[in-house]
Amino acid sequence: MNQQGILVVISGFSGAGKGTLMRALMEKYDKYALSVSATTRQPRAGEVDGREYFFVSQEHFKSMVENEALIEYAQYVDNYYGTPKDYVEKQRSAGKDVILEIEIQGALKIKKKFPDTLLLFITPPNAKELKRRLVSRGTESPDVIEARLKRAAEEAVGIEAYDYIIINDNIDDCVEELHHLIQAQHSKTSNRLDFINEVRNELNQL
Amino acid sequence: MNQQGILVVISGFSGAGKGTLMRALMEKYDKYALSVSATTRQPRAGEVDGREYFFVSQEHFKSMVENEALIEYAQYVDNYYGTPKDYVEKQRSAGKDVILEIEIQGALKIKKKFPDTLLLFITPPNAKELKRRLVSRGTESPDVIEARLKRAAEEAVGIEAYDYIIINDNIDDCVEELHHLIQAQHSKTSNRLDFINEVRNELNQL
Repeated sequence: MNQQGILVVISGFSGAGKGTLMRALMEKYDKYALSVSATTRQPRAGEVDGREYFFVSQEHFKSMVENEALIEYAQYVDNYYGTPKDYVEKQRSAGKDVILEIEIQGALKIKKKFPDTLLLFITPPNAKELKRRLVSRGTESPDVIEARLKRAAEEAVGIEAYDYIIINDNIDDCVEELHHLIQAQHSKTSNRLDFINEVRNELNQL
Repeated sequence: MNQQGILVVISGFSGAGKGTLMRALMEKYDKYALSVSATTRQPRAGEVDGREYFFVSQEHFKSMVENEALIEYAQYVDNYYGTPKDYVEKQRSAGKDVILEIEIQGALKIKKKFPDTLLLFITPPNAKELKRRLVSRGTESPDVIEARLKRAAEEAVGIEAYDYIIINDNIDDCVEELHHLIQAQHSKTSNRLDFINEVRNELNQL
């Protein structure tokens, strides 16, 4: 079967370990493609254009919107973030499962546009662990940590819209769970309608 | 988390290899419980009461229906088949994922009563393989094979109601796929609402 790739959105609390999980998943399996978002925000130290984000100007972003070159976009504070359509479509046609690591606002837009999208939400095993991870990074001020925890409480509001809640207690186990969840999508009845019709035709011809 | 077991219905074409798959799944993992149906039909050679079926009289079956001791029942030709409630509830409470190997008629009743039920449909890779397996058993007359293929064509009509279509090309791979599909259910958002509320409460108390 030459099946089209699955579209997967991965969201989660900051501090849930999404970045580490994505890197581990990509390293272990070559059937995934990680979509890189376009953004108008400035690159931070260490960020590389085309790796973390495509860093574009406000004008460029505006033209992408006008040319329908984004499958969704959203604004956070003063910056825009969007998912380039071209990359997603090419990879899916090539049979790759495409992963978008985006926030709930974008996730809901994608789900509305593509109802077969798999929405996954990553969470640490509990809120204390979430706080511990944010604190132990050592890179954030108490104010930023406070703001992130407040934001986490807000993010938890939309969590019911996701298909699965994945508890990241152990990276290796979690990568395997993600992999199996995504691969299971290929067996969903809605993704096997062609196969079903084939079997039906064959049965009628026997 | 002390989560209740998942309810899983497994159906499929005769000749799809359900019986072999179920035995292999039970042997490999101890987290599953296979529900044994009650039936009014006569035992066939080699069948053991309480293993393949609970063989009961028409009167006994009728009293089970009246006492609401079955979670679903259906009639095929002159015989009744039903799923005893007691066993299913006890096993699920103990955290076991309970598998019902029943036909589409019963599957749809279960799904209506328990919307979280996972409906899985097993199929051989194609119709020719289905015919080959039925013929190579060597136990059935051409008429019976003909009747089964006709029935398969009919069964394929309801197939869209199932959540996943599992292609049984290789027993070991198929057992693993079943296992991962069933385990994934535990991470479904609807099965993690308690967890979500816990994290929310914790976040609000930090």
